[in-house]
Amino acid sequence: MNVKVNNLIKSIEKVVSPGGVLVGEDVTDRSDTWPPMGGCQAMAIIRPVSTEEVSQVLKLCHAAGQNVVTHGGLTGLVGGAVAGKEDIVLSLERMHRIEAVDTINRTVIVEAGVPLQKVHEAAEEADLLFPLDLGARGSCTIGGNISTNAGGNSVIRYGMMREQLLGVEAVLADGTIISSLNAVIKNNTGYDLKQLFVGSEGTLGIVTRAVLRLRPLPRSCNTALVAIDHFDRVAGFLGAMDSALGGTLSAFEVLWNDFYQTVVGDGSEHIPPLGSSHNFYVLLESTGGHQESDRLRFEGALEEAFESELIVDAVIAQSKQQRQDLWAIRDDIVGLTAKLSPPILFDVSLGISEMDGFVAGVRKQLTNRWPHSKMVAFGHLGDGNIHLTVTVGSHEPSEVHAVETIIYEALGRCQGIISAEHGIGLEKREFLIHSRSAVEIALMKTLKQALDPKGILNRGKIFPE
Amino acid sequence: MNVKVNNLIKSIEKVVSPGGVLVGEDVTDRSDTWPPMGGCQAMAIIRPVSTEEVSQVLKLCHAAGQNVVTHGGLTGLVGGAVAGKEDIVLSLERMHRIEAVDTINRTVIVEAGVPLQKVHEAAEEADLLFPLDLGARGSCTIGGNISTNAGGNSVIRYGMMREQLLGVEAVLADGTIISSLNAVIKNNTGYDLKQLFVGSEGTLGIVTRAVLRLRPLPRSCNTALVAIDHFDRVAGFLGAMDSALGGTLSAFEVLWNDFYQTVVGDGSEHIPPLGSSHNFYVLLESTGGHQESDRLRFEGALEEAFESELIVDAVIAQSKQQRQDLWAIRDDIVGLTAKLSPPILFDVSLGISEMDGFVAGVRKQLTNRWPHSKMVAFGHLGDGNIHLTVTVGSHEPSEVHAVETIIYEALGRCQGIISAEHGIGLEKREFLIHSRSAVEIALMKTLKQALDPKGILNRGKIFPE
Repeated sequence: MNVKVNNLIKSIEKVVSPGGVLVGEDVTDRSDTWPPMGGCQAMAIIRPVSTEEVSQVLKLCHAAGQNVVTHGGLTGLVGGAVAGKEDIVLSLERMHRIEAVDTINRTVIVEAGVPLQKVHEAAEEADLLFPLDLGARGSCTIGGNISTNAGGNSVIRYGMMREQLLGVEAVLADGTIISSLNAVIKNNTGYDLKQLFVGSEGTLGIVTRAVLRLRPLPRSCNTALVAIDHFDRVAGFLGAMDSALGGTLSAFEVLWNDFYQTVVGDGSEHIPPLGSSHNFYVLLESTGGHQESDRLRFEGALEEAFESELIVDAVIAQSKQQRQDLWAIRDDIVGLTAKLSPPILFDVSLGISEMDGFVAGVRKQLTNRWPHSKMVAFGHLGDGNIHLTVTVGSHEPSEVHAVETIIYEALGRCQGIISAEHGIGLEKREFLIHSRSAVEIALMKTLKQALDPKGILNRGKIFPE
Repeated sequence: MNVKVNNLIKSIEKVVSPGGVLVGEDVTDRSDTWPPMGGCQAMAIIRPVSTEEVSQVLKLCHAAGQNVVTHGGLTGLVGGAVAGKEDIVLSLERMHRIEAVDTINRTVIVEAGVPLQKVHEAAEEADLLFPLDLGARGSCTIGGNISTNAGGNSVIRYGMMREQLLGVEAVLADGTIISSLNAVIKNNTGYDLKQLFVGSEGTLGIVTRAVLRLRPLPRSCNTALVAIDHFDRVAGFLGAMDSALGGTLSAFEVLWNDFYQTVVGDGSEHIPPLGSSHNFYVLLESTGGHQESDRLRFEGALEEAFESELIVDAVIAQSKQQRQDLWAIRDDIVGLTAKLSPPILFDVSLGISEMDGFVAGVRKQLTNRWPHSKMVAFGHLGDGNIHLTVTVGSHEPSEVHAVETIIYEALGRCQGIISAEHGIGLEKREFLIHSRSAVEIALMKTLKQALDPKGILNRGKIFPE
């Protein structure tokens, strides 16, 4: 570290509470990727305890032109939190208070470093629901959920993080505190500034506090796994269920046959709930207000779908345990990737009408080039979002790049989106042009320039170099 | 008109399709306010037929530093479309095509000048729903709905216009076309640029086309009017219904006693469905997927509310006609304002827990100052949004201003919002500071400066002078 940086870190030490600056092994022992591997390269990790301290730190960094990488729960999948040797990390790990649950207005104010699961628990204690939910719930933080506009399992019913957010407090690159802690659903008083910080991956400001919207806690839950033989009936089944269940459909996860076979096949711990010869499996769930009548409606809707030949087989969970067993199949990414090693992961959006052709097309291209390659498809089809896991038997950068190119070019041809949930970070920068035009990227840069003219916030992320 | 302006208008004439430029009486015969009164003062009204033409017009205006006021359906209530003698109006009235309803992916692409009701009709023809709905549906346009982030009757279930919008095509101040016609629910590829144009009242760009999200068309509808005697039970009833109906509550409109008495009282055409001595009336509606079982659930939920003494009386609509009759009471703004003339209108958001105190407090202040003043309260309580209609027997600007000051200062004291749905426009500029901080307004101006450095888009709107 040179003298200038040394002096900057000393100045920072004076404005943050004791224990707020980590250097040396305390930094390198940490990770900035998922899964964690250690070896964070940053010069220091700064851990403020308040918005005011974040502001003081950013003022100093701004004056010094020092790049800052913000850390939440470090469960992102695109390298958005990776820090280089010239970077300082600002971690929100000491800002994890849940400040107030308001049961009448159904809101909660939290600090950005609070883990998602803690918010679930606080809401549930107040007989309310915070609906955003994803696998990383125990580690990921609300700040990270905001900066990546997290999605997950209940988007079909409640929308993404953007829709759960009423207000934010954030700190701009120069240390200015924007306190925009709106707590109402409707606020048309000028520009909705919080939108700037949602999904911008820490490049436009650092969110320090948030007002979240809570919902009534569902009183019923019905879950089924169904088998379908043709893709067009998957789309038809989605429409039929969404309509018959009156907007209470809360999950519609599709597993292509290859996913199902891989996860429940030889050597698996799962007991296959349905035969494994069907082309598609749908895990669907509906939550509502009255267990008995919701159950009847759920069964009735499935019966109708069966009679109209949309589905060919179905199993309805009869207990909490059975529900968990069904979800365990969908969620067994560890089991999946163990059999597709080394895995290359994709998270794409596209029109439901394009999906079957897209999956078949890229599968063919991959097999042509790598005869032993494997690809499985699954995901939040109700949101137009599928995940692909591919292996070509190698993790060589050139091979990975060739796979990415095949998939993103195919996506571009059907107006698909290269990142539905995960964001762009470092890893998808090069491919951003497949989903966004040069004019759009130029306007993004105009915003970046306006809010962070020195470019000190998460420099190098999102934008192609 | 001076030579420079004359030349500009001649240049514009060359880039728009025949009939695209109105001047003289064709302008002054038109209105730019609601209700329409004629007398638009603009130098010309330009009527492009395509995004490309909008771009050409803006390029010319930008080069000339010419201010442009965009016109949609002209049903706004805050003077956002008012044009002065130095302004040119750009009207999207010739861009009203519905380009494509996609029934599988449930989207529709429309031009910005299409009236809301035409989108309702196109969706319904495809057995789908476009859920945004407001009184001005026959005249207001999708472009206006976007630029004001319109709300209306079904926000509690589906959210505001922002939540119905997947993508936009817009033209920036300098004529740059931003084609960001995203058609998927999940797209985390960099900044979500469409958010810039939602609720910014034509000050950051002109939306020319939009991709809208459609929903399943409900198969059931249940409506009731209930009477409640204490405000805390209104809030309790909202929570109970939202929970018992499992998220299918699609309207929760509250009428304070004064509204009900004014609208159904002496000389009214309405037959009062409930006695008029109760303190609060709630019009609630639930839509779902199955008429028979939804009806049972709706009745059961009301019965429970009755037994737990949340409500004291109720009438459930037994036919379409009875439903219409109940809604006619809520929607009888003409009948209301006839008895509160001249009316001063307010559209505020605040915490449900603050509402009763706020209404009582301002009522007292108004009566103290104007003993014969009247105020009625009603609105979308499920969204934290109420409307107030006040009369003090005069429409003198100083009197109106005094009323506004009382109400907005009271709102500021309870973190209320001076405009829930209507926007700021010209009329609420002065009061913006009651809902937004100086730092927030400065950041809004940073955005305005970045996107429209010459300040030619709807100059003078939103920001206090």
